[in-house]
Amino acid sequence: MSRTRVNATRRRLPVAQRRDEIVAAAQRLFGTRPTEDVTIEAIAAAAGASRALVYRYFGGKQQLYLHALLAAVDDLARVIEPPPGPPLSRLRFAVSGYLDFAERHAHGYVALVRGATHSAEAAEIVDRTRELIAELAFEGLELDRSQPRPRLLLVGWVAAAEAMTLHWLEHREIARDDLAKLLIENLLAVLPLPDQG
Amino acid sequence: MSRTRVNATRRRLPVAQRRDEIVAAAQRLFGTRPTEDVTIEAIAAAAGASRALVYRYFGGKQQLYLHALLAAVDDLARVIEPPPGPPLSRLRFAVSGYLDFAERHAHGYVALVRGATHSAEAAEIVDRTRELIAELAFEGLELDRSQPRPRLLLVGWVAAAEAMTLHWLEHREIARDDLAKLLIENLLAVLPLPDQG
Repeated sequence: MSRTRVNATRRRLPVAQRRDEIVAAAQRLFGTRPTEDVTIEAIAAAAGASRALVYRYFGGKQQLYLHALLAAVDDLARVIEPPPGPPLSRLRFAVSGYLDFAERHAHGYVALVRGATHSAEAAEIVDRTRELIAELAFEGLELDRSQPRPRLLLVGWVAAAEAMTLHWLEHREIARDDLAKLLIENLLAVLPLPDQG
Repeated sequence: MSRTRVNATRRRLPVAQRRDEIVAAAQRLFGTRPTEDVTIEAIAAAAGASRALVYRYFGGKQQLYLHALLAAVDDLARVIEPPPGPPLSRLRFAVSGYLDFAERHAHGYVALVRGATHSAEAAEIVDRTRELIAELAFEGLELDRSQPRPRLLLVGWVAAAEAMTLHWLEHREIARDDLAKLLIENLLAVLPLPDQG
C-alpha cells in the first residue's frame, strides 16, 4: 500500500506527457541560463524524471536543445499572433508578445541570435522563425506578396528588431515600452499601415 | 645557371610578402566559393606556393580562414570610409562600397552572415565589423553618443542592411542601385542627416 503511494507521488505519466514535461523543463533551463551550464541531470531533476529516462527519450543534450527550441518557437508563434482588430493594435500586440518572449527566454534568445549555438539545425529553425514573423507582418500590413521591395524591407525590419532586442537585453538602456515604440516606428517609417476598411 | 633562373621564376619572396599573397589567395577563394570547397591545395596553387609552406605559415584551413576574414574586414573598412563631403554623399559612398564588397565576396558574405562558419572567432570578427559600421554611421550622422536611442536605431539599421544585402545576394530581385537607395531611405527614415554647416 505505502509502495503504491510512493509510485503515485512520483507520478506515473503517459509517455507523451512525460516527454512534454521534460521538453518544458529543458526550455526553461536553456532559456534562462548559458547553454554550457545546462546539464541533462538538471533537466531531469526539474522535470521530476530520471537521467536515464531523459537519455532514453532524447538521446542527448543537443537533441533536447533542438526539441526545446522547437517548443519555444511554437510559444513565440502563439504569443505574436494578434487577435482581430485594427492594424496598429495588432502590430502593438505582436511586438509586445515578441518582447515578452525575448525577456522570458533571455539567455536562450541571446545565445540563438548571437549564433552561439553553432548548429545547422538550430540556425535553420531560427531562419524559419524569421520567415514566420515576416509572414505575419506581411499579412498584418496587407502587403503585395509579388513585390520584392516590401519583402526586402520586412526582411530588414525583422533583422533590425532582432538585433535591437538583443542589444536591449544586453544593455537595458531604455524602457521596454520605449523599445516597443521604436520597433513599431521603425516599421511604419518604411511600410505604411493598411487603410482601415 | 638554369637552376637559378627556375628559382627566380618561382619568385623567392620575403616571408611577409609571401604570407600576404597566401592570405590574398585564401580571401579570393573563401569569398567566391563555399567554404567546404576550398582546400589548402587550391589556396597554395593560387598563391604559387607549396602546400607545405601554407601549412607551415598558417597551420590549417581554419586559421587561414580567420586570416582571410581579417584581411577582408580591412578591405571593407577601406571601401566604406568615405572621403570628406556632404553627409548624403558620404552615406551613398559608404553604402555603395559595402554592396561592392558584398558582391565581390558573395560566397564568403553569405556564409558569414548566415553564421555558417560556426566559429566563435569568426563570430567575434563579424560583431566587431558591425560595430565599426555603426561607428562610421555615428560619425557621419554626427549623433550624440550618450543617447541610447540613436545607438539602438543604428544597431537595427546595420542588422537590417546586412539581412537585406544577404536576401538580395540570394534572390537578386531588384537592381543594386535600388537596394542602395532602400538602405539609405531606411536609415534616413529613422535618423536624420546632420545640418550641413
